[in-house]
Amino acid sequence: MTALAAVVLCAGKGTRMKSEKAKVLHPILGRPLCAYPLKRALELGATHVVPVVGHQAAEVEKSIRAHFPDAPLRFALQKEQRGTADAVKAAEDALKGHDGRVLILYGDVPLLRKETLQALLSAHDAAGGVLALVSTTLEDPTGYGRVIREGGKVSRIVEHKDCTPEQRAVKECNAGIYSVDAAFLWKALAEIKPVNAQGEYYLTDLVEMAAKVGPVGAVDADATETAGVNDKVELAARARVLQQRINEVHMRAGVSIQDPATAYIEEGITIGTDTEVGPSVSLMAGTVIGKGVIIGQGSVLTASHVADGTHIKPYSVLEEARVGERCIIGPFSRLRPATELAEEVHLGNFVETKKARIGKGSKANHLTYLGDANIGAGCNIGAGTITCNYDGVNKHLTELGDGVFIGSDSQLVAPVKVGDGGYVGAGTTVTKNVPPGSLAVSRAPQVVKEGWVAAKKARQTKVKAG
Amino acid sequence: MTALAAVVLCAGKGTRMKSEKAKVLHPILGRPLCAYPLKRALELGATHVVPVVGHQAAEVEKSIRAHFPDAPLRFALQKEQRGTADAVKAAEDALKGHDGRVLILYGDVPLLRKETLQALLSAHDAAGGVLALVSTTLEDPTGYGRVIREGGKVSRIVEHKDCTPEQRAVKECNAGIYSVDAAFLWKALAEIKPVNAQGEYYLTDLVEMAAKVGPVGAVDADATETAGVNDKVELAARARVLQQRINEVHMRAGVSIQDPATAYIEEGITIGTDTEVGPSVSLMAGTVIGKGVIIGQGSVLTASHVADGTHIKPYSVLEEARVGERCIIGPFSRLRPATELAEEVHLGNFVETKKARIGKGSKANHLTYLGDANIGAGCNIGAGTITCNYDGVNKHLTELGDGVFIGSDSQLVAPVKVGDGGYVGAGTTVTKNVPPGSLAVSRAPQVVKEGWVAAKKARQTKVKAG
Amino acid sequence: MTALAAVVLCAGKGTRMKSEKAKVLHPILGRPLCAYPLKRALELGATHVVPVVGHQAAEVEKSIRAHFPDAPLRFALQKEQRGTADAVKAAEDALKGHDGRVLILYGDVPLLRKETLQALLSAHDAAGGVLALVSTTLEDPTGYGRVIREGGKVSRIVEHKDCTPEQRAVKECNAGIYSVDAAFLWKALAEIKPVNAQGEYYLTDLVEMAAKVGPVGAVDADATETAGVNDKVELAARARVLQQRINEVHMRAGVSIQDPATAYIEEGITIGTDTEVGPSVSLMAGTVIGKGVIIGQGSVLTASHVADGTHIKPYSVLEEARVGERCIIGPFSRLRPATELAEEVHLGNFVETKKARIGKGSKANHLTYLGDANIGAGCNIGAGTITCNYDGVNKHLTELGDGVFIGSDSQLVAPVKVGDGGYVGAGTTVTKNVPPGSLAVSRAPQVVKEGWVAAKKARQTKVKAG
Repeated sequence: MTALAAVVLCAGKGTRMKSEKAKVLHPILGRPLCAYPLKRALELGATHVVPVVGHQAAEVEKSIRAHFPDAPLRFALQKEQRGTADAVKAAEDALKGHDGRVLILYGDVPLLRKETLQALLSAHDAAGGVLALVSTTLEDPTGYGRVIREGGKVSRIVEHKDCTPEQRAVKECNAGIYSVDAAFLWKALAEIKPVNAQGEYYLTDLVEMAAKVGPVGAVDADATETAGVNDKVELAARARVLQQRINEVHMRAGVSIQDPATAYIEEGITIGTDTEVGPSVSLMAGTVIGKGVIIGQGSVLTASHVADGTHIKPYSVLEEARVGERCIIGPFSRLRPATELAEEVHLGNFVETKKARIGKGSKANHLTYLGDANIGAGCNIGAGTITCNYDGVNKHLTELGDGVFIGSDSQLVAPVKVGDGGYVGAGTTVTKNVPPGSLAVSRAPQVVKEGWVAAKKARQTKVKAG
Repeated sequence: MTALAAVVLCAGKGTRMKSEKAKVLHPILGRPLCAYPLKRALELGATHVVPVVGHQAAEVEKSIRAHFPDAPLRFALQKEQRGTADAVKAAEDALKGHDGRVLILYGDVPLLRKETLQALLSAHDAAGGVLALVSTTLEDPTGYGRVIREGGKVSRIVEHKDCTPEQRAVKECNAGIYSVDAAFLWKALAEIKPVNAQGEYYLTDLVEMAAKVGPVGAVDADATETAGVNDKVELAARARVLQQRINEVHMRAGVSIQDPATAYIEEGITIGTDTEVGPSVSLMAGTVIGKGVIIGQGSVLTASHVADGTHIKPYSVLEEARVGERCIIGPFSRLRPATELAEEVHLGNFVETKKARIGKGSKANHLTYLGDANIGAGCNIGAGTITCNYDGVNKHLTELGDGVFIGSDSQLVAPVKVGDGGYVGAGTTVTKNVPPGSLAVSRAPQVVKEGWVAAKKARQTKVKAG
Repeated sequence: MTALAAVVLCAGKGTRMKSEKAKVLHPILGRPLCAYPLKRALELGATHVVPVVGHQAAEVEKSIRAHFPDAPLRFALQKEQRGTADAVKAAEDALKGHDGRVLILYGDVPLLRKETLQALLSAHDAAGGVLALVSTTLEDPTGYGRVIREGGKVSRIVEHKDCTPEQRAVKECNAGIYSVDAAFLWKALAEIKPVNAQGEYYLTDLVEMAAKVGPVGAVDADATETAGVNDKVELAARARVLQQRINEVHMRAGVSIQDPATAYIEEGITIGTDTEVGPSVSLMAGTVIGKGVIIGQGSVLTASHVADGTHIKPYSVLEEARVGERCIIGPFSRLRPATELAEEVHLGNFVETKKARIGKGSKANHLTYLGDANIGAGCNIGAGTITCNYDGVNKHLTELGDGVFIGSDSQLVAPVKVGDGGYVGAGTTVTKNVPPGSLAVSRAPQVVKEGWVAAKKARQTKVKAG
């Protein structure tokens, strides 16, 4: 197989994004725009991938490196924005020694599929020349460069404004995406002339030059794949297509998505069969969902693992949490990082956990905060229980054994331990360890003042009258 | 009127659903797929309805019986999946003695409307023959059996692959849904030959046989009605159509639905005029909503009754709850089963109720759990109040009279009563009954240690330095 | 410039709305339907705007006055609903003395853009006659009045039912929206004859009369702009178009809207560049959002101000709140009216504020209610803290200085103050002021009963056995 490299143009400012952030860094389904073509290039086995950076070069490079820490990246700098040909030329040094093919991609064209790029490479092979291109057929091609064919063979690209009336009728447009033999590419780029008074160099000329050397391959892609992003309206439109595409893949694999129009699932998330994803559920990067899980309406899961058969009720928010099998969570549960639940744990409404390990079958169903806590199996944590993990300076640990009962509205002032089978009475402030099997209670005696209400009203009436 | 029976084919596995569950049991708007055609048959007055089951026959039968406990169902078993004709034939014994018409429906075609089936029966009447069919006109009929007419009259169905070029141009397709005279049906089915090497028998042949006996009726239905479900992408697509259809019926009847694309309303729910349904609201089976109700964004109501003029604020979750007139609920209220609110009750944010009867005008506006409680009228339940209904073994009742004031962060350790007009001080653990008009308080005296903070800091600094 | 007046027809009942409310009062994106054409007329500089009211005249007038308190409105009453010409005629007295142009608009046509009306006025100028109209080109014009042209010039409107076959082929339809010279208008209206047995007078005749006086101007508008509202299905459909239009304006101005299909943003809201609006976010009237703000999924903001760089996590509900720069809010925060946060305040899950001023960098991250409170800078409010602001009769103030630490599950029984640097132990009921730098605690000693759990079980077993 011919060695493959890729150049991904990421240098543009993207003025119409109206943003302080470079265009290719704008997120689409949780990743920067440019991460998509970069990922496609890597999936195709490119041995060198050259992001050509320019505007906010340092930020773009940093972001790309963070998303692809182990990828064979070589960054190239386009100092001035002088057209696409100039941008590709900037990658020449970085690809010195690469004598296979170069794929030319765009950091702001996120929806191009791997299959289409594979077809491009095959078309390159089949044609046997030095270049293949991706075209797209548009009902209304106004403004696009047309793919001009002679005797059926691609001969060149003509810009819309330069088209003859006959050429204007052509609906096959150039998407600007190429596979080019490296040797030809660098030689040809050196010969391209600026196209306008601003001294911009466009890649389009490559096609005519390549057609003189050998047959130009072409593969037709759907316009949704080759569409770029120029403003935030287009960004949102591309995101919707990507979302539908991802959701359909999951559904065909056996995931039930109640409303694919509102389910938001980032790329690369695992979901088991027969799992039900409710409306407006968001599943963010790093999330892994088992089989037969129910994820209720509006829940938001980030980098969390949920095991088989668990039921997450509506409006639960999980972040870096691990949830065991057959748990019942929510509605309105909030699991923060380092929450680890064993199987059959129940967390109910208005319950927050953070750095909390909770054992099998334990329950905290109402209005509770469990932070910095190790909790055993079979515990019952009453409504309104709070681990007082912070003393204003440091965080401390709360430890409960197995089978512990914490009465409602208790405070566990950490560091503190309750032994196996310990029982804490309602409203207790637990400041000292509770031995196994013991009751702990801190409670002022209940005082009742009969007639107090009438007396109070009389006083208040008197005050008003007075 | 001719007696009507219906056969509903529910035997398929639905391999492309990629599920452990039989295809017809997959829910669409809260009910199994097959419940829709079954319901339509019953609405048309079918005196016998025969679900033909096969794959997971026991589960399918159980689910159908649960959804239609009183319906005149007779189940038939198709032992092997040998085509639609074989499946219908499996119903013959169950329909022994029925000498009217047989409606042939599909458990995986959920969107067929009652009106269309009525039109089918009328077309059967009007034609005066032994069979009428539902056709659908498709712009691109590729793959579908064509309805072939001679002199305008339906003569037979020709499968796509067997079509002449002329027949391929026909856009009237067979939806596979029939009304057939019983006597003809059983006789004809006995004559149908297998169509392929797998020995499958298809119903399509019935049409030509019927046309030889008498005129075949036909009614054209929209393709959205006759579309089946083969995978979860199609399941979601059908659900969306059904949702729009239901929402439009409500809107035309005077319900304001802010965003019909995200409002999810199951079949058979009652909603009064001038009620406003917010975006992403879900109304599940068994829910009854009065007039002039406001249901805020994202609320989820299951089997709950809400009376006129009540305002449910965003993100409230109600399950088997009954809410009186002019109540104000939420945001973030969670009403669990056996919650019964009188009129003008206010439940606010982060409030949970369960088995709670609450009297007229009582309020619990913040961070409260009321479980197993009978609460009178005009009570004020302070923030953070918790009914301690569970002692680790049993659940107990909390009873408040009328006009009770519960101070914030109190615990009501059940079984316990507070009499009419009783007053509980903030932070009290109520363990004993409070007589009417009395104050109850359990409070350790507030101790103040001046200079303590500076001293503590000094100690901590010393420790760090030490 | 010619003086401009506008007549906005608001008299209809709107029977198909199935509502007790007059049609033009039904809200679309938070405002009554009729507020949109009224606003457009005012934006164009109309010196007199005449809403013609009829059905529920008093309510309609009241609502319009409330939405446009300072506008030059003159209400006119149409006593009986006798057609559009009669309705416009009802405005004659109110416009006595106005000798410029009269714009004729409809209270149930909300989507007409200012630009289109400007084009209408320009077309009126350009034609130089006494009338200009808005037309709309429909693929299927069935039912609509056609714009009939002779020699390219508009000559009259012909109703669908009166069309010749040739006229039926015309796709240019009359939208019923006109700019008319006042002098001509009143004279012409006096001459219009009733069109049917019910004695209804239609405006359509104006066009032919005007064409006899001088050239009729015409401007073509998209059908989405000229569509009216006749039932709640149409109301929802118009709302969706308006929502998309508003969202696109924000996106083109640099706001990132993750899912424009579910983001609900009312007209007239300010949002800074690089702000991210999550899915299902609702931004209601009076809201002002700064730059670089993140508004998480499902949050609902009403009349609230959020300063630059603040992060609002999912499912936060804000009403008349002011949030400073770089705050972190939510998820599940609920900020009620008169909440004022300085910069860098953190409010976390299940936290409610009301009439609360909170100083720089203070934090209340869990399960807390802060009502009627002035809180200084750098405070740490523990989980489960509650301000007891209500004694059953009056509301009282809680005041915390700077750097105060409130231990978890404390109650602040107002009126009460904690001085700078004060420290309240967990579970304390604070009833008396706490001096600066002091510790306050009210705590019954923790009692531990060893072996209690086993003894209790033995008792329970005995009871069961007994």
